[in-house]
Amino acid sequence: MERLRIDLGERSYPILVGPGLLHDAAVVAGSVAARDVLVVTNTTVAPLYLPRLERALEGKRVASVALPDGEQYKTLETLARVFDALVEHRLNRDACVVALGGGVVGDMAGFAAACYQRGVDYVQVPTTLLAQVDSSVGGKTGVNHPGGKNLVGAFHQPRAVIADTDTLKTLPPREFRAGIAEVIKYGLIADAGFLDWIEAHLDALLRLDGTALTHAIRRSCEVKAEIVAEDEREHGRRALLNLGHTFGHAIETATGYGEWLHGEAVGAGMLMAADLSCRLGWIGAGDVARIRALLERAGLPVVAPPIGVGRALELMGMDKKVLAGRIRLVLMRTVGEGVVAVDYPADALQSTLSAHFGATA
Amino acid sequence: MERLRIDLGERSYPILVGPGLLHDAAVVAGSVAARDVLVVTNTTVAPLYLPRLERALEGKRVASVALPDGEQYKTLETLARVFDALVEHRLNRDACVVALGGGVVGDMAGFAAACYQRGVDYVQVPTTLLAQVDSSVGGKTGVNHPGGKNLVGAFHQPRAVIADTDTLKTLPPREFRAGIAEVIKYGLIADAGFLDWIEAHLDALLRLDGTALTHAIRRSCEVKAEIVAEDEREHGRRALLNLGHTFGHAIETATGYGEWLHGEAVGAGMLMAADLSCRLGWIGAGDVARIRALLERAGLPVVAPPIGVGRALELMGMDKKVLAGRIRLVLMRTVGEGVVAVDYPADALQSTLSAHFGATA
Repeated sequence: MERLRIDLGERSYPILVGPGLLHDAAVVAGSVAARDVLVVTNTTVAPLYLPRLERALEGKRVASVALPDGEQYKTLETLARVFDALVEHRLNRDACVVALGGGVVGDMAGFAAACYQRGVDYVQVPTTLLAQVDSSVGGKTGVNHPGGKNLVGAFHQPRAVIADTDTLKTLPPREFRAGIAEVIKYGLIADAGFLDWIEAHLDALLRLDGTALTHAIRRSCEVKAEIVAEDEREHGRRALLNLGHTFGHAIETATGYGEWLHGEAVGAGMLMAADLSCRLGWIGAGDVARIRALLERAGLPVVAPPIGVGRALELMGMDKKVLAGRIRLVLMRTVGEGVVAVDYPADALQSTLSAHFGATA
Repeated sequence: MERLRIDLGERSYPILVGPGLLHDAAVVAGSVAARDVLVVTNTTVAPLYLPRLERALEGKRVASVALPDGEQYKTLETLARVFDALVEHRLNRDACVVALGGGVVGDMAGFAAACYQRGVDYVQVPTTLLAQVDSSVGGKTGVNHPGGKNLVGAFHQPRAVIADTDTLKTLPPREFRAGIAEVIKYGLIADAGFLDWIEAHLDALLRLDGTALTHAIRRSCEVKAEIVAEDEREHGRRALLNLGHTFGHAIETATGYGEWLHGEAVGAGMLMAADLSCRLGWIGAGDVARIRALLERAGLPVVAPPIGVGRALELMGMDKKVLAGRIRLVLMRTVGEGVVAVDYPADALQSTLSAHFGATA
């Protein structure tokens, strides 16, 4: 087991990473201080891991609610079910919400914990690679709105994160690969050496080697934490974490949430960011080819849907990362160094969009 | 105009109190820095004050949403309409939500502002006395749940509060008197001199004298701010603000939200707190009579509904101010000095409940 401390003053918390953690009652109960617990999970994860988690929490008063599985259920309506469960089980301010599942469960459980009685504790038990490397750090919680992703939410830090790498064995391979896209992202924006490591260990990661996974998750969380620590409320460097996301959101919104996985859309979006970075002369064509090859080796899609430039721009414009009408984009100054760009030529963006989204408009 | 600064470090904000403020474009536009504004109001207040507010905001991009009027609409469902309006008008992170109305509008607008894109600015323009003296300070926002009041919410400070005393001229007298109950509360918990002042100026307040109102609102906000400043996230002294509220919640819940106004329930609840404080020997029977007389002069109901002791206890037990099953109650050590009590004899509480809620149980 590796242990990473996220340093946020009085809201600091540990991330525990390793195989078999859910079997370890000392680890689990040691992370959940409250006597009264509501486990928020979904109907896919519940039969796989809820009994194990409940055993690890033996001696506490544990209730649970299983939400429908899928990004399309990350809504205010589904969130209301969590509040209903909290009220039904008469949980008070000293209760703890435990999120058992992927990013959707984590975002909703965390948001419910942020709002219930104006804030109760929560602990994350992420069971997808994406949630382990992304949602574990940053304190972002929330739900989607038909007008855009994560438009409604709160910043709320967990008390602890327990990332059991064994849970990835039941994760559909496609979702696992989508998580790898986010791991690659950390290399691209902040750590060229980690990118080298990923290239060298991709096969081990893809066969779910415990040691490789533990290192990849730990280093990903560490990179994210370094960036977030400098900038807890997203003004400057934190925007780097959105590499591929603005392009990716256009893909996700155009195709309807759920058709492309978030990590898949981010992966294809990172390739577009690389393409634009290359057009600006910041990285070379060889770098773009290298990134494309790594994404392809990871089994990730690299061809965006042909929605046309106009539609893509429109969807990027409604994206919440817009500042006063101007589209900020995260690009690469070099491979391993992300940069927030606003002063790129419009025709370079146009060319990138045209090359990837097709010329329909 | 009087100006009170609420000191919260970088989240400090001014409360402006006085007649005619909504006519003063310099005051209004000076408090709303954003270019893009969503005014959240209700169908009762909109025809009275929305055009005036819109004139004062001339030159900005102003949209508005009018919610149905009433505590029964303070729900997640109604909140969703505010999010819909924010999205529909394509408001971004630099937008400002302006709450024009009473406490319900303020709580929902503030909660929407807390959550939209994980937090945008908001400014309160309270048009009821209760909202002017209560919601202006403390940063509490939220909605009700069938299981209890304000069970879902957030702490979110406004950028400014504009309390125009002229808006009280269109307030139904019953709601005005309910607001007076909260003004009396500040005297009872923290300022015996202010209580004397209220007794001396009650007639002026009841005929909506601008000078008297401005002083009462300003002093009420000041007392609340002093208590909140010591204790921003409600651990100790802030609980004093709940004088009458635990008893009052039982009244409101038993009769269904809306039949008793919040301030009316708090008024009757304060009398119960006085009764219990007297049974404990902390205040005298003369003090109780004095408080009853003041409430009656203000036209407030002092007789609770006969719901029975058992039901009252049950409703007080579900109240969120419960810590580990124990009912904390705010009582009076002396008139003008509130105290949080947990160690009172159960039979004294029983006697108070029996005297006020009837013996049905």
